[in-house]
Amino acid sequence: MSYVYMNKDETHFDVLGIVGVGLIGGSLGLAAKKRGLVGNVLGIGRSPEKLERAKQLGAIDEYTTDLVEGAQKADCLILCVPVLTIVPLLTQMVPHLKPGCIVTDVGSTKTKIVKEAEGVLAGRNPFVGGHPMAGSEEAGVDAADADLFVGATYVLTESKNTDKAALRKLIEFASALGADAVTMGTHDHDIRVAMISHLPHIIAAALMMLSPNEAQALAAGSFRDTTRVASSPPNLWRDICESNRNAIIYSIVSLRKQMDEIEFALSDDDFDSIEEMFARAKELRDALAEKKGWKES
Amino acid sequence: MSYVYMNKDETHFDVLGIVGVGLIGGSLGLAAKKRGLVGNVLGIGRSPEKLERAKQLGAIDEYTTDLVEGAQKADCLILCVPVLTIVPLLTQMVPHLKPGCIVTDVGSTKTKIVKEAEGVLAGRNPFVGGHPMAGSEEAGVDAADADLFVGATYVLTESKNTDKAALRKLIEFASALGADAVTMGTHDHDIRVAMISHLPHIIAAALMMLSPNEAQALAAGSFRDTTRVASSPPNLWRDICESNRNAIIYSIVSLRKQMDEIEFALSDDDFDSIEEMFARAKELRDALAEKKGWKES
Repeated sequence: MSYVYMNKDETHFDVLGIVGVGLIGGSLGLAAKKRGLVGNVLGIGRSPEKLERAKQLGAIDEYTTDLVEGAQKADCLILCVPVLTIVPLLTQMVPHLKPGCIVTDVGSTKTKIVKEAEGVLAGRNPFVGGHPMAGSEEAGVDAADADLFVGATYVLTESKNTDKAALRKLIEFASALGADAVTMGTHDHDIRVAMISHLPHIIAAALMMLSPNEAQALAAGSFRDTTRVASSPPNLWRDICESNRNAIIYSIVSLRKQMDEIEFALSDDDFDSIEEMFARAKELRDALAEKKGWKES
Repeated sequence: MSYVYMNKDETHFDVLGIVGVGLIGGSLGLAAKKRGLVGNVLGIGRSPEKLERAKQLGAIDEYTTDLVEGAQKADCLILCVPVLTIVPLLTQMVPHLKPGCIVTDVGSTKTKIVKEAEGVLAGRNPFVGGHPMAGSEEAGVDAADADLFVGATYVLTESKNTDKAALRKLIEFASALGADAVTMGTHDHDIRVAMISHLPHIIAAALMMLSPNEAQALAAGSFRDTTRVASSPPNLWRDICESNRNAIIYSIVSLRKQMDEIEFALSDDDFDSIEEMFARAKELRDALAEKKGWKES
């Protein structure tokens, strides 16, 4: 993983095409326009009402519900749709893309998407996988924010097929939005987000399933916090599980090993090891909270 | 589990002895005095400075650092010390307890404590295990609050040896503090708190241990929430693990079964089952948040 900071004023696309103008797509439009990084933002979607709303909010300048028209006009295309929809939509647009148009996405899993996107593009246009770690794919454009990416980590993936010039241009673009642009391999990305996002979501759901109502009556702060993300949209998480299946299985296996060690220490009355683990975890957690500026601990 | 609500004005102990005047002990003193439930609150502890501070705050009326004196004066004795210290302290006080003095505790595990406390008391005085689900054993008396127990669940345990009159009197006392008094067996209590409190703490620690620094750099809201309680005091959690070992092992085994099912569904590409699980968990979580008045979801 390498961090890249740039101060380049001229990062610029004449027409930035945003497919799916929700929270992330809308915020990208607002953020790019606020910073003068684009000529025109073209919203591409299915619902004229939603696109009209995005235009009212200033997230896009114009819009189309025609994927072909969108493909023909954009100099950079950002796919901001749910993970399983990215490649099917891209497949329809490929034959009509402008030569040189850089294609990227904001999906929260990368290996499968990048591999399939590179496959359908077949070298015709450059594709760089993207994942800005801010907001979610589900909330609407009304929550869009021109400063959503300020200080956020924006992952851009690098594979052996990645076009270096396109990657560089997107690093400059993400940095100009105020994000910390970070490059890594798709597999590294997927294992890491499985560990720090997908596994916590699955655990939250598992904890809810484990505790019958009588137990839940006793729930206090720790249960409230640990299970909060169990309220996330089930269909979104189904798709993430499908899209990142292997890395998530790997994360579950890793957790099992960790929990087996803890169970073994408990069975063995080895409470020194238990306390050491809690102490190490607290040290890691306190350092992370400090680094991230989390205020609650 | 049965809920008991009472409206009895005369719940009363002439001298309420509180051993360990921290957040919980201090709050019990403030709460009982505010509601006129006691004649005098006697603080019992090791540190004259801390006891003097508790007196200044109005949490106690007088204090002693002499366990024998404390035992001789109290009509009800509440042990508000860490779980592994409860029985050793009680053992020293037993020979000097007033006849009829009701003894209770506020430890967050119950089976071991109640069994051992009943053992050292040997029928001489009644013992009722208690666990007010509010605050923690660790914070100091400066955080004490006369309304800490209002609306909180206050568990009182019932075993075959439990003195029914003492249990009834403590139910009335807890209810008069504004708490929802709940009775259950010690084993039921321990399994339930293992599931809704101890297991989430262990998982939070395990998640921290699992994720190397590079992954943590990507951490966002779900990781922040799920790992928050990993910042808890390691020595406190060591003691809870020691005190509730068997129930915690049971909770880990239950989690493993749940996670195995999820892994099996993922391996089998059975994303319908995955979505069903997420949907059921969301339903349970939303209902719980509604019932508890949690505002964040």
